[in-house]
Amino acid sequence: MNDKLAFRVDELADRLGGKLIGDGTIELSGLASLADAGPEDLSFYSGTAFTGTTYVEALARTRAGALLIAKHHPELDVPQIIVSDPQLGANELMSQFFPPTKPEQGIHPLAYVSDSAQIGDDVSIMPFAYVGSHAHIGARTIIHPGVKIEPNVRLGNDCRIWPNAVIREGALIGANVIIHPGAVIGADGFGYARREGKFIKLRHVGIVVIEDDVEIGANTTIDRGTLGRTLIRRGVKLDNLVHIAHNVEIGEDTVMAAQCGISGSSIIGKRVLMGGQTGLVDHLQIGDEAVFIAQSGVIGNVPGRTTVSGYPARPHREVLRAHAEMRNLSQLRGKIRELETKLARLLDEKDPTVRRQ
Amino acid sequence: MNDKLAFRVDELADRLGGKLIGDGTIELSGLASLADAGPEDLSFYSGTAFTGTTYVEALARTRAGALLIAKHHPELDVPQIIVSDPQLGANELMSQFFPPTKPEQGIHPLAYVSDSAQIGDDVSIMPFAYVGSHAHIGARTIIHPGVKIEPNVRLGNDCRIWPNAVIREGALIGANVIIHPGAVIGADGFGYARREGKFIKLRHVGIVVIEDDVEIGANTTIDRGTLGRTLIRRGVKLDNLVHIAHNVEIGEDTVMAAQCGISGSSIIGKRVLMGGQTGLVDHLQIGDEAVFIAQSGVIGNVPGRTTVSGYPARPHREVLRAHAEMRNLSQLRGKIRELETKLARLLDEKDPTVRRQ
Amino acid sequence: MNDKLAFRVDELADRLGGKLIGDGTIELSGLASLADAGPEDLSFYSGTAFTGTTYVEALARTRAGALLIAKHHPELDVPQIIVSDPQLGANELMSQFFPPTKPEQGIHPLAYVSDSAQIGDDVSIMPFAYVGSHAHIGARTIIHPGVKIEPNVRLGNDCRIWPNAVIREGALIGANVIIHPGAVIGADGFGYARREGKFIKLRHVGIVVIEDDVEIGANTTIDRGTLGRTLIRRGVKLDNLVHIAHNVEIGEDTVMAAQCGISGSSIIGKRVLMGGQTGLVDHLQIGDEAVFIAQSGVIGNVPGRTTVSGYPARPHREVLRAHAEMRNLSQLRGKIRELETKLARLLDEKDPTVRRQ
Repeated sequence: MNDKLAFRVDELADRLGGKLIGDGTIELSGLASLADAGPEDLSFYSGTAFTGTTYVEALARTRAGALLIAKHHPELDVPQIIVSDPQLGANELMSQFFPPTKPEQGIHPLAYVSDSAQIGDDVSIMPFAYVGSHAHIGARTIIHPGVKIEPNVRLGNDCRIWPNAVIREGALIGANVIIHPGAVIGADGFGYARREGKFIKLRHVGIVVIEDDVEIGANTTIDRGTLGRTLIRRGVKLDNLVHIAHNVEIGEDTVMAAQCGISGSSIIGKRVLMGGQTGLVDHLQIGDEAVFIAQSGVIGNVPGRTTVSGYPARPHREVLRAHAEMRNLSQLRGKIRELETKLARLLDEKDPTVRRQ
Repeated sequence: MNDKLAFRVDELADRLGGKLIGDGTIELSGLASLADAGPEDLSFYSGTAFTGTTYVEALARTRAGALLIAKHHPELDVPQIIVSDPQLGANELMSQFFPPTKPEQGIHPLAYVSDSAQIGDDVSIMPFAYVGSHAHIGARTIIHPGVKIEPNVRLGNDCRIWPNAVIREGALIGANVIIHPGAVIGADGFGYARREGKFIKLRHVGIVVIEDDVEIGANTTIDRGTLGRTLIRRGVKLDNLVHIAHNVEIGEDTVMAAQCGISGSSIIGKRVLMGGQTGLVDHLQIGDEAVFIAQSGVIGNVPGRTTVSGYPARPHREVLRAHAEMRNLSQLRGKIRELETKLARLLDEKDPTVRRQ
Repeated sequence: MNDKLAFRVDELADRLGGKLIGDGTIELSGLASLADAGPEDLSFYSGTAFTGTTYVEALARTRAGALLIAKHHPELDVPQIIVSDPQLGANELMSQFFPPTKPEQGIHPLAYVSDSAQIGDDVSIMPFAYVGSHAHIGARTIIHPGVKIEPNVRLGNDCRIWPNAVIREGALIGANVIIHPGAVIGADGFGYARREGKFIKLRHVGIVVIEDDVEIGANTTIDRGTLGRTLIRRGVKLDNLVHIAHNVEIGEDTVMAAQCGISGSSIIGKRVLMGGQTGLVDHLQIGDEAVFIAQSGVIGNVPGRTTVSGYPARPHREVLRAHAEMRNLSQLRGKIRELETKLARLLDEKDPTVRRQ
């Protein structure tokens, strides 16, 4: 809608406190990946020993007009801004090239806000959002269209709740929390008493507590506690379509990729990394900094700083060894056949009158 | 918002018809788990032979002011109410400690209800809910904010449809059904005719039928029949993020944990238990009371009263045996090496002029 | 609501250009599966060499009043309409028996449409739908209740966006695209820079591009690019609860069943078939017409026209062989025991004074 913004390379280097090698007067109007960048774009290359060949090749071929880069590459004849962390540098410059937009402040006339709700300063509440009785919305928090906030929810400052997310009654949510579209916070847990083959629903009167700096992916579901609380600690990041059952607790800075599922009352440590589609049964204890390879199926506790994979999840090294063994099974079978033949021959020679069957 | 309610222990015992041992005059204002309870709280302990050590320890350490318990524990010096089923007892008392709240009755002026819709007595239809033409809403049913009910849906009495759930046209839903936030009932099935590498969409003109006493989890999806119906029978409980494809039929009192996926036209029996992330291919027949361990990948029929696990799912005992075999593979390999050595030695001795290669 | 429509068999045969064998004057008022059809219904049978026994039996037992069928079955004494593709024939006749309904055209007064949005001819925008600033809605596109379209989205002609779907800012969507309820297009990708154990959110300023003739399932999530775009090419069909991460590219006419998850920057070829609950790690390359058996866990590139399964996904034939080997492991163990016994006996006989331990 607007004319594109443009920035001189030397301005951008100054902005990041980076060392510029090359022509600083070139003007750039975009920020793009190595593969997509054209002469009018800045791009970036983090370039470590672990960088895949794809990136090395992309660097050689890029048409970018200038680069954020960790060390000078003299073979590339474009201006280079040397910074210690090109990825974070690029992230910082995004606000130049793509100025963040925020919706208008205030309560839109097509929103519903209960008279008993408390609304902080500079809040945006957009059309078809619903804020129930006694809810509390912190300052500068943005409630996108169609979000439903049920009674007695408490949302901290500077949160952003994207369209059609649902936060059910009583949830306590800290500051700087992002909840993506369609996420459901605080639905009833999946808890029944089984009596004579039928299931009697247990009421779920617990809540969900989400601490500061948490991000919850699109269509992810976090159930309320049966009693007590489901607790998502500071800095946790959950991807899309993740399921967190009642009374689970997730430690600080733990990260779960898409479609993970955590069953009731499991306690996950800090800085745990969980690959996509991992599943945990209920009542487990997971130590700090455990790592789960994608699609792990976890049926027992996992100590800290352990990498597991497979179903049932075991230490990843064991799993790799087992897979290698599997691949060698037919070789094993061959050896046994060979042994059988030799032994049979030996027995025949020893007593030629007794025929083996 | 209100002052906390408080109840005397003897009142609570009377309410449940339980036997009180200890001081009945103590007043309690909360109901909490053994671990979370304080002196002002009631807690409960079901205590069976199968109770894990966590619960036994939690009982020993609880700070609860009184207990619902199956048999008297004289070593604990708090009042104890003896009932046959402490979990159900606690569930029954929840309505004392946490009186259920219901939204105001009536159609909110910010809801949309078609003129041709039929609305039962004492219904609540909240802001931004949509009720399409010729829909029928049973008595006392609660439609939370943002729910979308498309034309010709029939919803029974005493249902509760939580925020932003979607029920597409023609679905027939019984009484006492709970649909959690974001669930989608009656989207088109995933059916195409493949012709020359392209996919031609098949129209889905079937419906979804949900019988009484069913509970559908948050963001779960149940597709309509291509022709005919997808059928969820009485008492079925589905957790969050479950996928039920077109023309599936699920038998009475069957339970599926989060993220299960059932492909088209599969027929599931009664009282089946399915662990999380289990997947079934299409057109399967599953017998009554079959049990699926979490993450099972099912590619064939499963007879009744069978427990299966793994991919491809097999009887769980076989799977456990196979895993044990796997763990012993290197031992097997060792034995073969030993046999080879012995045999080689034997052959060498027998004919020392012929060197084995 | 209406009286049922009825059609003569000969009219239906004419409509499809099929050959009628039997009484053309019979009137039919429905279209149903072989199992469900009654005397007033048309049914159909595709009948190929690969048709399962269920269908053959259903044909023998059907009570349908007439049949669409690929070749005449003289043993069935109902009118038969011979067509080359009975399934497609039935699909074509659906519009007779079940005339498609469309909502009223126009912008409903309970919808919100930004003044700067551009709305094509004959569009329907239903209650509680939100169309943000500078969005563009193509001609004849239908926006169901509760859909949220954020600023700068471009939607082509003849799209249908079902209730409560969310399309975030800047997405570019072609013509004839169907998005089912609760789907989320364009949420932020799951991308962080990890620095000293904490995760710094990377801004996601890319977009989602969806070409013509794509169908997106209920509650499916497609994340926007970090930079650049996530690209869903012409004719792709995604089932429910699928997750597509940032910067993924999916080739033409590729099909993914429910609950698949594709991690960031993976490139999927054309006409790929992916069974349900399949997961791919990031940065993979998948060739055209690769096939993934349900629940595959894919950690490496897969060449075109290859069928893989299991975790870690390998060529399906190898996996089947490995499973057969597994089942034979105890037999292998038995053979080794036998060899040990024979060898021990041999050694004993050879030197009876030396006892083996």
